[in-house]
Amino acid sequence: MLFIKMTKNYDVVIIGAGPAGMSAGLYAARDGLKTVIISKDIGGTTNSILLLENWPGFSGTGAELMKKFYEQLKEYKIDFIMQDVEKIKKEKEGFCIETKKQKIYSKSVIIASGTKRRKLNVPGEKELTGKGVSYCVTCDAFFFKNKTVGVVGGSDCAAISALALSDLAKKVYVFYRGKKLRCEEITSKRLEKKENVEIVYEAVPLRIKGESKVEGLVVRQNEKEKEFNIDGVFIEIGAIALIEFIKDLDLELDKDGQIIVDSEMKTSVDGVFAAGDVTHSSLKQVVVAASQGAVAAKSASAWVKKS
Amino acid sequence: MLFIKMTKNYDVVIIGAGPAGMSAGLYAARDGLKTVIISKDIGGTTNSILLLENWPGFSGTGAELMKKFYEQLKEYKIDFIMQDVEKIKKEKEGFCIETKKQKIYSKSVIIASGTKRRKLNVPGEKELTGKGVSYCVTCDAFFFKNKTVGVVGGSDCAAISALALSDLAKKVYVFYRGKKLRCEEITSKRLEKKENVEIVYEAVPLRIKGESKVEGLVVRQNEKEKEFNIDGVFIEIGAIALIEFIKDLDLELDKDGQIIVDSEMKTSVDGVFAAGDVTHSSLKQVVVAASQGAVAAKSASAWVKKS
Repeated sequence: MLFIKMTKNYDVVIIGAGPAGMSAGLYAARDGLKTVIISKDIGGTTNSILLLENWPGFSGTGAELMKKFYEQLKEYKIDFIMQDVEKIKKEKEGFCIETKKQKIYSKSVIIASGTKRRKLNVPGEKELTGKGVSYCVTCDAFFFKNKTVGVVGGSDCAAISALALSDLAKKVYVFYRGKKLRCEEITSKRLEKKENVEIVYEAVPLRIKGESKVEGLVVRQNEKEKEFNIDGVFIEIGAIALIEFIKDLDLELDKDGQIIVDSEMKTSVDGVFAAGDVTHSSLKQVVVAASQGAVAAKSASAWVKKS
Repeated sequence: MLFIKMTKNYDVVIIGAGPAGMSAGLYAARDGLKTVIISKDIGGTTNSILLLENWPGFSGTGAELMKKFYEQLKEYKIDFIMQDVEKIKKEKEGFCIETKKQKIYSKSVIIASGTKRRKLNVPGEKELTGKGVSYCVTCDAFFFKNKTVGVVGGSDCAAISALALSDLAKKVYVFYRGKKLRCEEITSKRLEKKENVEIVYEAVPLRIKGESKVEGLVVRQNEKEKEFNIDGVFIEIGAIALIEFIKDLDLELDKDGQIIVDSEMKTSVDGVFAAGDVTHSSLKQVVVAASQGAVAAKSASAWVKKS
């Protein structure tokens, strides 16, 4: 039995400290709510954006922007608990949020827990993770200086990762199952200009080869198997909503396991709001997440003040 | 008959250059759309925000933030036409947008034209506008140094205006029809601390007095008329969507004359999108407008690329 420390009651618990969670914190605190943010890190997946040019009025890394968000929050009375949330339960009045070390009571909850990376689920992926298989270019690009690497995916993240790798690696393959990358056109054009980048279209990864480290990737292309000799592979095929801790809440989810919200960021459970990439909204962008955080906080504030 | 210059065709015409319009421009240009922004100014009503602390990661004036947005846009191929739009007509393919001097053809339109200030519609208001009646604290506060002024309204804008005026004026009255200001709590608390600010609740302005300049405001409070001697009055009672130019488009509006959009920022007319304060969304904030601009641009991009 672990020691559970009882803590004070809050008006709102915000789970997650990415753009959605921090924006929600800003608005909640400005609206006078007793606010706590629970998150295992500051910045979330935005920290791994190598070049962020579409947060209006800003150009830099995602981590730089998240630092600005965090610095601003320090001006307000907001508690931070740097832990993972294990469980949320509805109580008679409000909610009980449990981490491994604490129980926290709150009148309302904003879920802004974001996503984790989607896996390819092919042979070799799990075995070679950390041995050439990576989900984070920011973290691991440097290991592939002057080597040959592959990026799997066609999204903005995949294309930006390939661009970043092309400055460092000898050769970069982009493996995409579609006929045209689905990233912003400005990024696909930049990629096309890179002489050491080769985009392999209609390629479906079948297995990652290698004993103690990645040696190759086998894809199916036009009904044929084809092997590429690569030293590393970055898997950039999207993300899955991080919602394991909400299973006691019975929230309505969409078919991809994302939380369904209305235009006020209300979920199907009264007093529970959601914002950012964890929701079913179609455009996963920092500015959208920040806006949703603001709206969720205003809705939580109205809920707390009338209850 | 005016000379009408025919100009090239665009993928998207964005009307307005506030947070919604400039964010739409950023996303449209990055998505490879041939983009033009038509607006009579850069920044829109955000320029008049004296203290903007809830754009995440930023603290400063609205005009400073709008300058950052604009500087970023200069990196992209976006045409700017600094004029008012007079009219939009649906053509066989796409739309014709008319200003006094030009006709512009475009496959899609994003309306981000924002709002203009709502009037009190009481005797004396029109006659004394510019003679003590003002709708812009940023523009006119300085004229009331060491004088007595009134602010009408209870919103964020009204409260921030009163705060700003309190540093300059001898005495500031805030006249609000409700029992509690509806601004963010952080702002109402700051106001309460100001010794030269007096909030007059449940006060409905009846008429503004004065011959050549404002001399007083008469309000109804608890069934009685009451007169306050003031040298100026700032009217901060919200805004009306700027949509005169869309009457030929037959867009669906809400009861307040705001454009109804879905979660993808689509209006009731195919190929026409809207974003920012001109839409019916409930939270009028810079971060919400910027997010809506991004979503509208992505939707316009999908529309242009499939048509």
